[in-house]
Amino acid sequence: MASGMGSLENLARSFASMPGVSTKFAWKLAFHILTLKKDEVLSISNNIIKAFENTKRCNICQNFTDEEVCSICSNESRDKSKVCVVQYPKDVFTLERCNAYFGRYHVLHGLLSPAEGVGPKQLTIKELIKNIKQNGCIKEVILATNPTVEGEATAMYVANILKPFNLNLTRIAYGISVGSEIQYADSVTILKAIENRNKI
Amino acid sequence: MASGMGSLENLARSFASMPGVSTKFAWKLAFHILTLKKDEVLSISNNIIKAFENTKRCNICQNFTDEEVCSICSNESRDKSKVCVVQYPKDVFTLERCNAYFGRYHVLHGLLSPAEGVGPKQLTIKELIKNIKQNGCIKEVILATNPTVEGEATAMYVANILKPFNLNLTRIAYGISVGSEIQYADSVTILKAIENRNKI
Repeated sequence: MASGMGSLENLARSFASMPGVSTKFAWKLAFHILTLKKDEVLSISNNIIKAFENTKRCNICQNFTDEEVCSICSNESRDKSKVCVVQYPKDVFTLERCNAYFGRYHVLHGLLSPAEGVGPKQLTIKELIKNIKQNGCIKEVILATNPTVEGEATAMYVANILKPFNLNLTRIAYGISVGSEIQYADSVTILKAIENRNKI
Repeated sequence: MASGMGSLENLARSFASMPGVSTKFAWKLAFHILTLKKDEVLSISNNIIKAFENTKRCNICQNFTDEEVCSICSNESRDKSKVCVVQYPKDVFTLERCNAYFGRYHVLHGLLSPAEGVGPKQLTIKELIKNIKQNGCIKEVILATNPTVEGEATAMYVANILKPFNLNLTRIAYGISVGSEIQYADSVTILKAIENRNKI
């Protein structure tokens, strides 16, 4: 589109190349940049490069971090006996935001998916086993992959691999979402919610 | 939030400071940056700085551009006799996208709003008059400010100021939006649509 705005158009294109950013929204963001102070603009620009250059995987849990060992793994007040296995770093972010879990994590960086050519070697299962062997005090592994076909298969695969270690292997609970209505829940969820019913 | 992701968290904060970007969406964008190639990341980062540093106002129409005169004003194939007066550069972007107008523009960079302390001097009305005097061949000025109280007041103010120039002063048409339904239109819009009815 010939907007006649050169650099601004290039910036809008950059924003529009990101997931979930429409052309219209990209222009909104580009116009927003012009309203900022110079140091704010430099800070956004630098943060993009810094995040790309400094982010690596934690030696223990494989989550993204700037350090050799991330701040969760190096936090002595966290429960070392529990490891919550998740698919992506964004799941760690979501769980941390809930303030409901105070153990450690392990990030698989994917799920088993033969259709997409993702086998056990593409995931960080080797690193999980190494961590369990080295740590020594892990008592429970919570498998918190998504309740999808791939998430389920990956949880079962990891559970099988970890059986020889004699750990308490658990899976996050299925059920009706809090605040939702039973009429809108799918039949498999309702089945699981009835199977996993609790005494009150 | 202690996500333990240092630089990545700073980047997510930068994204979240932009309008319309939630914390969750900001993290999605931050994780997306990590999946790019280095030159793509550098290009995004540079485009932000370049847009901020190179963007100025066109000497003629006051729209954002990298040059002294923007590519629309310097395009000899555009109709020099028409000037479409809009509120913001984003309106030029919207109008250009429709491929319905081939004249030139004038960007006011705001609307009259006594409540917010915006008077005629804060807008580029002086530059519009200068342009009309210097150009010499402008025959029509289309007032395309938004159909809001401020947009209407600004259009009337500009029209009054331009009266001595003996130009054809027009206002964009009001009416029912194409594709919408009459039952959902507000009463003022319906009134305008009936007033401005056309022969078929």
